[in-house]
Amino acid sequence: MEEKTFFINAEIPKTIAAEGIDRKVLAHQNHMMCVEVYFQAGAVGAEHHHPHEQISYIINGLFEFHVQGEQSIVRPGDSIYIPSDAPHGTKCLEEGMLLDVFSPHREDFIES
Amino acid sequence: MEEKTFFINAEIPKTIAAEGIDRKVLAHQNHMMCVEVYFQAGAVGAEHHHPHEQISYIINGLFEFHVQGEQSIVRPGDSIYIPSDAPHGTKCLEEGMLLDVFSPHREDFIES
Repeated sequence: MEEKTFFINAEIPKTIAAEGIDRKVLAHQNHMMCVEVYFQAGAVGAEHHHPHEQISYIINGLFEFHVQGEQSIVRPGDSIYIPSDAPHGTKCLEEGMLLDVFSPHREDFIES
Repeated sequence: MEEKTFFINAEIPKTIAAEGIDRKVLAHQNHMMCVEVYFQAGAVGAEHHHPHEQISYIINGLFEFHVQGEQSIVRPGDSIYIPSDAPHGTKCLEEGMLLDVFSPHREDFIES
């Protein structure tokens, strides 16, 4: 992987992640990756799981999250810890953006 | 460490990190931790290093960062990858907030 320190947002393209959901893969290297995820109101991040641990931090908007059967409505500044392999999903109640952080980084998010 | 999924920002107190710098320790568990860091204009995060890898994401404000001798001015949405043990520091040019994410989590940031 390229060695890089500074990831300038304006230089990074958005890609389509799912219906009503775009993302930008930002700083990543070794064991870490952060990703902006843009949601339209009503968009659903379907339940899924992966071996990577994850923290989601709400930048703006309103989201309903469920993690391993536990559910909560979260607002800007709130954050969620998702253990390795834990089933999780979200529904966007008001248009907004999450910062998703993974450890280790998601190789499947990097185009070769 | 307590098992916790949802970290509600309004329930978490700020602590003083340094002169002109406060922080809130948000979601953390196992190999990950995210921390809001609030800077007054002119505040300096003195050069330091630690074995944890780090990503800093600019929420708002304007910052000058240096990492291993490389320097850049970063804006909201920009992000920085800091390798394990790499010397790094920042100066806040316009009042703002960073989201610092560490892997593994910073045990030194958790009060017992």
